[in-house]
Amino acid sequence: MQNYLSHLECPKCHLTFEPDAQHHLCECAAPLLVRYDYEAIKADFKKEDLVNREPSLWRYRELLPIRDEKNIVTLGEGMTPLLPLPLAGKKIGLSNLYLKDEGVIPTGTFKARGAAVGVSRAKELGVEVLAMPTNGNAGGAWATYAARAGIKSYIVMPKDAPMITRNEVAIAGAELYLVDGLISDAGKIVGRAVAKHGWYDASTLKEPYRIEGKKTMGLELAEQFGWDVPDVILYPTGGGVGLIGIYKALRELQEIGWIGEKMPRLVAVQATGCAPIVKAWEEKKAASEFWENASTVAFGITVPKALGDFLVLEAIYKTNGCAIAVNDDEILVAQRDLATLEGAFICPEGAANYVAARQLREQGWIGADEKVVLLNTGTGLKYPDTVQVDPPLLQPEDDLE
Amino acid sequence: MQNYLSHLECPKCHLTFEPDAQHHLCECAAPLLVRYDYEAIKADFKKEDLVNREPSLWRYRELLPIRDEKNIVTLGEGMTPLLPLPLAGKKIGLSNLYLKDEGVIPTGTFKARGAAVGVSRAKELGVEVLAMPTNGNAGGAWATYAARAGIKSYIVMPKDAPMITRNEVAIAGAELYLVDGLISDAGKIVGRAVAKHGWYDASTLKEPYRIEGKKTMGLELAEQFGWDVPDVILYPTGGGVGLIGIYKALRELQEIGWIGEKMPRLVAVQATGCAPIVKAWEEKKAASEFWENASTVAFGITVPKALGDFLVLEAIYKTNGCAIAVNDDEILVAQRDLATLEGAFICPEGAANYVAARQLREQGWIGADEKVVLLNTGTGLKYPDTVQVDPPLLQPEDDLE
Repeated sequence: MQNYLSHLECPKCHLTFEPDAQHHLCECAAPLLVRYDYEAIKADFKKEDLVNREPSLWRYRELLPIRDEKNIVTLGEGMTPLLPLPLAGKKIGLSNLYLKDEGVIPTGTFKARGAAVGVSRAKELGVEVLAMPTNGNAGGAWATYAARAGIKSYIVMPKDAPMITRNEVAIAGAELYLVDGLISDAGKIVGRAVAKHGWYDASTLKEPYRIEGKKTMGLELAEQFGWDVPDVILYPTGGGVGLIGIYKALRELQEIGWIGEKMPRLVAVQATGCAPIVKAWEEKKAASEFWENASTVAFGITVPKALGDFLVLEAIYKTNGCAIAVNDDEILVAQRDLATLEGAFICPEGAANYVAARQLREQGWIGADEKVVLLNTGTGLKYPDTVQVDPPLLQPEDDLE
Repeated sequence: MQNYLSHLECPKCHLTFEPDAQHHLCECAAPLLVRYDYEAIKADFKKEDLVNREPSLWRYRELLPIRDEKNIVTLGEGMTPLLPLPLAGKKIGLSNLYLKDEGVIPTGTFKARGAAVGVSRAKELGVEVLAMPTNGNAGGAWATYAARAGIKSYIVMPKDAPMITRNEVAIAGAELYLVDGLISDAGKIVGRAVAKHGWYDASTLKEPYRIEGKKTMGLELAEQFGWDVPDVILYPTGGGVGLIGIYKALRELQEIGWIGEKMPRLVAVQATGCAPIVKAWEEKKAASEFWENASTVAFGITVPKALGDFLVLEAIYKTNGCAIAVNDDEILVAQRDLATLEGAFICPEGAANYVAARQLREQGWIGADEKVVLLNTGTGLKYPDTVQVDPPLLQPEDDLE
């Protein structure tokens, strides 16, 4: 397997690092990004090469950081469905609305992508123990992939995280802890533990490879649209790694000449109960501030201060995108609308995009015929509490009506 | 879109039926099977045609019953991962053990396949209302696909069915009823309702198209193994439609010349608390008897008497397969082993296969180097109650250890 990994680079101070040692943050405390030998990739890697490859994210292996394929830890993740939403689109005045459905992936959320690539690379770098804070789904994914890799994992999540993610972490054999607080509290506990025990810190953006997994959403969208990118991509933004990743993917595709100048306008969608990126964008700032008393039904995006906030904001600014906050009541209505109209039972985070798309259409920010993608980050199956149900109980001799 | 649908045929009395009207059971009360013009398919359809097709079950459209592609109702289902299980295999003395993972599919279970094809064909036949009994997952899938098709659905499930399937049915806008009994009781209620209201009866095997969706598991396995079929396929058997479907698929692939004479030995795996097929197989009978007081943690296979039992048994006999029952305690241990060793958090029904594979290896029925596939029918995410978890609760100032 030819590999094109070149170096790690700090996007803030531009220090570079040799990639085959374990690295976390830059000396300036910013996350590191992975760089490849794009000239060589451009020369060697052709769209036609994809034809006979498996429908997983590993089809883009030239743009991924694993040096030896024996280190690939996979559960078959990637190439998730891109679904047209004709009725849901019509309802909000959009004639080309799509759902990229990350519910159809191992562990049921897009976190599998970051975990697959992150854990593979951790294995390649000799990691034996990792630790991370999580709002639930990332923990489920990393515990699962770590189990497959034979890596021990410590996972800390808020006690309010989705219940099923506890099961997911526990059955994988990870060490699970709850915290009476938010993911930021869990992060501090993990920070102290990795410092004390020398474990690999797999916190969001504290290792450079999770982004590489997430960026494959951007690669797939480009391929699924026939290398003609859509006009707008809406993304539910907590840590924002997916948005950073999609932006990075599209820039890399430009670099190797697979797509043209056009970029989709990237939209960061947050909940009104936790909207630090939206506030920063409205104030035209380069970074966000800690959001006090964060709370939303879209639990996965309850991130009061994201380490990569400046990269999220850069992606928005550079693509003429925007940031928008929506409220919990509308999120739950949107979740039901998408299930009833389109058969898409998605997570509240994903449903938030639909509310945002409607508002941006009403404001004229999105045109009626533009190609618009809602990036759904996970299956609704992991969020039973968002659906109220009280069905009648029949005895065997009863009739339906 | 060229279509090769020929007729419907009763596998018991061999009556044939014109396929473009709504049909349910044969006059002799047996389920009907779909037949195609295999000579024409053999002439027109080549393995190379698959190369540029989407990784969904619709890639095999020549072997599917939809006449007009505008009737296809899809959420991107199919081409699920085939995963090697090296560590779990080693533990039970099998060097070529695989998992076909139907957890990575819309709605999280293999029921999506039957629903996608069944609902598509129902739409094509003008159905406006359907009704069905279910152990949960089929109801979730059919309610979901019916919603996408604009078909109204009535779903009746035992009150003990997995909780999340209630949410799934309800959010899709279906009419949901619980019954204080088993799926057989739900079936009687549905039977009375369809007779009274003239609704389309979507009960297992009471319409001929669900099998066609399920059979795509067999088509995919053949393609994923490079058209060289594995030696043994283990399948958790309730209604048994998947097993019937896989057998039908492989026979059809032989018919069109895509695979040779060799067939995998098909194994029906049941729980000791509900094992009517196993009992019938041990007694060398052609059909099963109603299993009294059926109960198992693998709820999806709690089917006391399957309408297609004779087809399941035929598939086993004709392939020199077998039927085997495993107990609930071992199923739960197997579920944990697969998650911990391989990162595969699967449903208890799927985990039952692993217990069965171990026992068949111990008996020498499976050879150490044979290629063995465990067909996992769904994600463990839908079964939180099968995992016990009691993690420590930390305060933000606490340390991990």
